[in-house]
Amino acid sequence: MTSRITCPTLAARVTDAEQAATHIRPGMTVGMSGFTGAGYPKQVPQALATQIAAAHERGERFGIRMLTGASTAPELDGVLARTGGIDFRLPYQSDPELRERINRGEIDYMDIHLGHVAQFARSGFFGPIDVALIEVAAIRPDGALVPSTSVGNNATWLELADTVILEVNADQPAGLEGMHDIASCPAPPHRPPIPLTTPGQRIGEPYLRVDPSKVVAVVETHGPDRLTPFAAPDDASRRIAGHLVEFFRHEVARGRLPANLLPLQSGVGNIANAVLEGLREGGFEQLTAYTEVIQDAMLGMIRDGLITTASATALSLSPAGVADFVARIDHYRQRIVLRPQEISNHAELIRRLGCLALNGMVEADIYGNVNSTHVAGTRIINGIGGSGDFARNSFIACFMTPSTAKGGAVSTIVPMVSHVDHTEHDVSVVVTEQGLADLRGLSPRQRAHAIIKHCAHPDFRPQLQDYVDRAYLHSRGLHTPHLLPEALSWHQRFLDTGSMRV
Amino acid sequence: MTSRITCPTLAARVTDAEQAATHIRPGMTVGMSGFTGAGYPKQVPQALATQIAAAHERGERFGIRMLTGASTAPELDGVLARTGGIDFRLPYQSDPELRERINRGEIDYMDIHLGHVAQFARSGFFGPIDVALIEVAAIRPDGALVPSTSVGNNATWLELADTVILEVNADQPAGLEGMHDIASCPAPPHRPPIPLTTPGQRIGEPYLRVDPSKVVAVVETHGPDRLTPFAAPDDASRRIAGHLVEFFRHEVARGRLPANLLPLQSGVGNIANAVLEGLREGGFEQLTAYTEVIQDAMLGMIRDGLITTASATALSLSPAGVADFVARIDHYRQRIVLRPQEISNHAELIRRLGCLALNGMVEADIYGNVNSTHVAGTRIINGIGGSGDFARNSFIACFMTPSTAKGGAVSTIVPMVSHVDHTEHDVSVVVTEQGLADLRGLSPRQRAHAIIKHCAHPDFRPQLQDYVDRAYLHSRGLHTPHLLPEALSWHQRFLDTGSMRV
Repeated sequence: MTSRITCPTLAARVTDAEQAATHIRPGMTVGMSGFTGAGYPKQVPQALATQIAAAHERGERFGIRMLTGASTAPELDGVLARTGGIDFRLPYQSDPELRERINRGEIDYMDIHLGHVAQFARSGFFGPIDVALIEVAAIRPDGALVPSTSVGNNATWLELADTVILEVNADQPAGLEGMHDIASCPAPPHRPPIPLTTPGQRIGEPYLRVDPSKVVAVVETHGPDRLTPFAAPDDASRRIAGHLVEFFRHEVARGRLPANLLPLQSGVGNIANAVLEGLREGGFEQLTAYTEVIQDAMLGMIRDGLITTASATALSLSPAGVADFVARIDHYRQRIVLRPQEISNHAELIRRLGCLALNGMVEADIYGNVNSTHVAGTRIINGIGGSGDFARNSFIACFMTPSTAKGGAVSTIVPMVSHVDHTEHDVSVVVTEQGLADLRGLSPRQRAHAIIKHCAHPDFRPQLQDYVDRAYLHSRGLHTPHLLPEALSWHQRFLDTGSMRV
Repeated sequence: MTSRITCPTLAARVTDAEQAATHIRPGMTVGMSGFTGAGYPKQVPQALATQIAAAHERGERFGIRMLTGASTAPELDGVLARTGGIDFRLPYQSDPELRERINRGEIDYMDIHLGHVAQFARSGFFGPIDVALIEVAAIRPDGALVPSTSVGNNATWLELADTVILEVNADQPAGLEGMHDIASCPAPPHRPPIPLTTPGQRIGEPYLRVDPSKVVAVVETHGPDRLTPFAAPDDASRRIAGHLVEFFRHEVARGRLPANLLPLQSGVGNIANAVLEGLREGGFEQLTAYTEVIQDAMLGMIRDGLITTASATALSLSPAGVADFVARIDHYRQRIVLRPQEISNHAELIRRLGCLALNGMVEADIYGNVNSTHVAGTRIINGIGGSGDFARNSFIACFMTPSTAKGGAVSTIVPMVSHVDHTEHDVSVVVTEQGLADLRGLSPRQRAHAIIKHCAHPDFRPQLQDYVDRAYLHSRGLHTPHLLPEALSWHQRFLDTGSMRV
């Protein structure tokens, strides 16, 4: 037994990664930990990749079906994708190796709302879960598991899997203990209300539970999460944040939002960080967050008391953020709750709390449909993640992007998005560095006017207005006027010439 | 006072429709009752239309902003659209006159999830509500209102409006009293869980409340709702129903659904009726419904005890259905609960109950995106209604349509839908008379295979497969392969030639 493994039964299962990986066999479905590069298993996937590569060298077929919380890291998605060992993957990824193989058509990838995975898995929609492979921070004397830096779907994988492999990572902060709140949801019928009414409320217990008889291997590991460097917000992000902050001020002044807003859901990335910095500079305080991921900017606002409580399912910090997190972990443990993604992204709770959903996007069209996932309709970038969970059931759904990409060659405001992840019915606000279009209460024609005027880059405004004008002349129906042969031509022009400009 | 108006204060406000209509003035926003042709005001809108027409003849501008529960009837949407008196309309309509003007670009129409309207109105997103015009079945001595055959957003309009006009329709069954359950939801923050855990549970009171000082007119009316003739299911509908019943049997056998299924949400129309008849013939019993609208087939199953309880926000019956409803109203009052659409379509409740969402559609594409609203991307038919409320948060979201339309000239399975109302992330099952594609757990490529094989009409299968095959050869990304210049060409061919056939 070590200081991290104080359960005699499970201490007796300690083995090495190579031995542990042998429990994963061809054709199996494996539920793994990991969410936004946090809390993923660090060693067994690499050992598994070696075994898969060896099998392939012997001419044997070896592929698995792989389910996680969300994105992981090169030591998991990367190595396994590179071996050709992933047949099927859900619900989210952001790994360059894996993405490339998905877009080559070599791996079947299901891009699904993060908040739906546990319910569908529990109800058998993805078939049996053979193995759970979960990183934890410690194992207590009674076998209870101290979760790691993400919770994700871990409780579900531990519950459903026939066989469990645990990685105990001694480099994860011991002070994580007590920060988690593990509650589960039964399958229907007979589901009681989830009793959570404020972001910081605890409704479960701080530990994951597992039937010890299912645990076939415990592997002691070391090593950091995939830490994301924190980039200072660029000018476009700061301007996007400025428009949003002005919008929120206006809503508060009109009595449509409380002075401390509503629980914030903040997507991952630099724009999200910039928006939080903007709220700080704008003098907002007593804020709360009900979100998926805590990044550096949010951590800083929790540190400084501007965000009083934050609920999430994972941390996604820079090296400096981790250092601060560890240094003040007792402070953060009073203010941060890490939950299963089924709870962090649950429709019932997002709707009840009235979250303000702030998510990035690839592009929006003039009618307010949003593409979050695909370049030119066919190449997936990452996935929808939790943006649909939050946008669909939020109080106000905001989507943000700079108005151009590829050095100005691409307009992120287009006549028709090449893939729809959020429909016109679910998008309240579109923001670019140019401005903000408040789409609430507007018809499609009114939305087109607002989006072109406020969000499109001036270089593309005439081209967009020309499309709209001609669509009004020639479209069969004038509720949502379109010229079908031209609607996706901007994307095709980009594919052909590298630019959407005429 | 009459037998229907037993409150002295409100009886003193009785006047005629012409006088009542004068309270609605140009530029006002009016919240009206009415959901699927049930419970809409019968006389004041016609008087208003006359006054609008007279104003227009005098050269005066007279348009209003009109918010309802959902669709109404010719005596409301029809007459007001014909006068040119509607500037803006939400959240749903199905009137031929109104639809035509929307598609001519004369009326701004916002097509919005029915379950979101009350929250957004209460929070001021649609501006102030000047007048509420609400049909009720009776007024009690204490001023409490007995709701009519639909509840819709009536509680919200009564709460928010500065001025209230009531129509008391003596032809609505007196026995409706006690059938409703009026509960409201506060604005965030500080919202408790909605305590409903079974479809038949009552969590409010059976009456609508209004501040009597706001009531400026009470009009006594007579007349039936817009009653929908019940068409016996045609062959295609019966085959669609057969595939769904087989699917449900299979899910029960696999232990993924209880023997009495989960609460059914059944869209409006003949396919929905056919599915319910199919469940009856399939021997299902002890069913429940948590839905928007109760149609004849559901009423019959409640009568015969196959559906034990049904929750909805409106009745949409045939003349024979109404006769049966009135004859057995004491029986039905024990088994039917009519609720505000905010509750009937609430994300929290749909998710908790695990509804099986069964909705019609215009078309689906090979990747499982669904168009519920637009012909060829530009002409709106009705609107998204509650299909998004239910599909997005349901346990299994099924979309149904015959595989062809326009006498076989149009395939309802297309390479890319011309408008997206339900994204690939939200669609579990696609059904046509050809068969059923179970999309759960499938990647886009697997979905395309299943949908073409099981759902497309044989006449269009080769054309679809040819598209897919060529997309795999030429698409930039192979996660969701497409040929952008061709993706919407089927719709353009239909516009040009009246057919999608090559």
